[in-house]
Amino acid sequence: MSDIVTAGILVIGDEILSGRTKDKNIGFIAEYLTNIGIDLKEVRIVADDEADIVAALDALRSRYTYVFTTGGIGPTHDDITADSVAKAFGVPIDHHPEVVARFKERFQGAGELNEARLRMARIPEGAELIQSATILAPGFKIGNVIVMAGVPSIMQAMMDIVAPKLKSGVRMLSESVRANSREGDIGGPLREIANAHPDTIIGSYPFMDEDKKPNTNLVVRSRDPEKLNAAMNAVKEMLAGLKIAR
Amino acid sequence: MSDIVTAGILVIGDEILSGRTKDKNIGFIAEYLTNIGIDLKEVRIVADDEADIVAALDALRSRYTYVFTTGGIGPTHDDITADSVAKAFGVPIDHHPEVVARFKERFQGAGELNEARLRMARIPEGAELIQSATILAPGFKIGNVIVMAGVPSIMQAMMDIVAPKLKSGVRMLSESVRANSREGDIGGPLREIANAHPDTIIGSYPFMDEDKKPNTNLVVRSRDPEKLNAAMNAVKEMLAGLKIAR
Repeated sequence: MSDIVTAGILVIGDEILSGRTKDKNIGFIAEYLTNIGIDLKEVRIVADDEADIVAALDALRSRYTYVFTTGGIGPTHDDITADSVAKAFGVPIDHHPEVVARFKERFQGAGELNEARLRMARIPEGAELIQSATILAPGFKIGNVIVMAGVPSIMQAMMDIVAPKLKSGVRMLSESVRANSREGDIGGPLREIANAHPDTIIGSYPFMDEDKKPNTNLVVRSRDPEKLNAAMNAVKEMLAGLKIAR
Repeated sequence: MSDIVTAGILVIGDEILSGRTKDKNIGFIAEYLTNIGIDLKEVRIVADDEADIVAALDALRSRYTYVFTTGGIGPTHDDITADSVAKAFGVPIDHHPEVVARFKERFQGAGELNEARLRMARIPEGAELIQSATILAPGFKIGNVIVMAGVPSIMQAMMDIVAPKLKSGVRMLSESVRANSREGDIGGPLREIANAHPDTIIGSYPFMDEDKKPNTNLVVRSRDPEKLNAAMNAVKEMLAGLKIAR
């Protein structure tokens, strides 16, 4: 188990960039990775364009332990993820015999196993399949890149299959407290606490509470439970002090 | 009016990458830009880290007509967007007199206009403010970069203020049709139509319909209404042909 395992996400699809489809995968994967001790460091969304996909993939895979892609592995002409990944890795891509065999079992009607569907069996050389009985078009893992479907339910099934095979780091722990204060009232003391607790990450998130008053959630994160506690105690003392001062 | 106006989005915030907060801004801005004739080409999400913000900002602002950022303009230590933007542009940043004057009117209680709140008045030199009576911390536009809040309601108000000032291109037109077919059944003929109509973008989006059957939405996009019509007619003829063949 390494100390820090990092990840990037690459979402592929014109439909996300046009606003037609609202992405639901980033939030899911982000939370999933946090829970298994992998730090998500960056997300990119690009169009169905080979050059854009390859450039983003190369930037992310050289920088992070893992890259998760979603989208572009279906049977139509705009599904170019597998080919783009093969190009990025400089490996050939062809119909994977195991996937073709499964498709032959599954599609038995006349013309059902057509060229479009066979396209979903195209897998870059050396990739490991991500599949199950309920997944039609498989995802795959090649090097540190995990290629998944764009349809949320299928992507989620693929995450469950691939997650146990990943290195995971020391999990980032997190605790939050509702400040019952406006962010601007606590910004000063909070900065001092953040400076005094360098191995923690302290986040401040304003929201409108049920009384329509500006309120703030404070989140302390750390890999070290003692450091997390120390910082959270300092935050709580600060908040208690504000209450007395009022 | 130029023919093609492009944009990138940069979402800034640890809370999105940890999965704690689910982004609601990308989808909104994407749809907004499509409606005003601006092509969203790329989105990046990065952490509250100056080097990461500057690198992403430089990559996007050199590549696209506009860059829209969200997040990181509040009063706390983790709000570093304005400073990072100033750094990227190589300009000084200081308290903007107009914003300070407004804050002085607004915050009159003892200690209310503290250092934390004054932080929200820090604006890079040469930037134009994005503000209104209902917006506390202003956004700003510097060069081709538009800096907005992360809180969706405030970001949306800022989009409405800034949008009329932007160049807009020839609007991308879009029409969609429900195929009542599985994606794999139409992938072949659809590719032929896409090849025969090069000035259109044809997207294929599978979904589960109300009868729990795999179905597909087909979307044709083009800036030219005649080319859009020609491609959409070809798609509809293809779908009608499938129906007869059944």
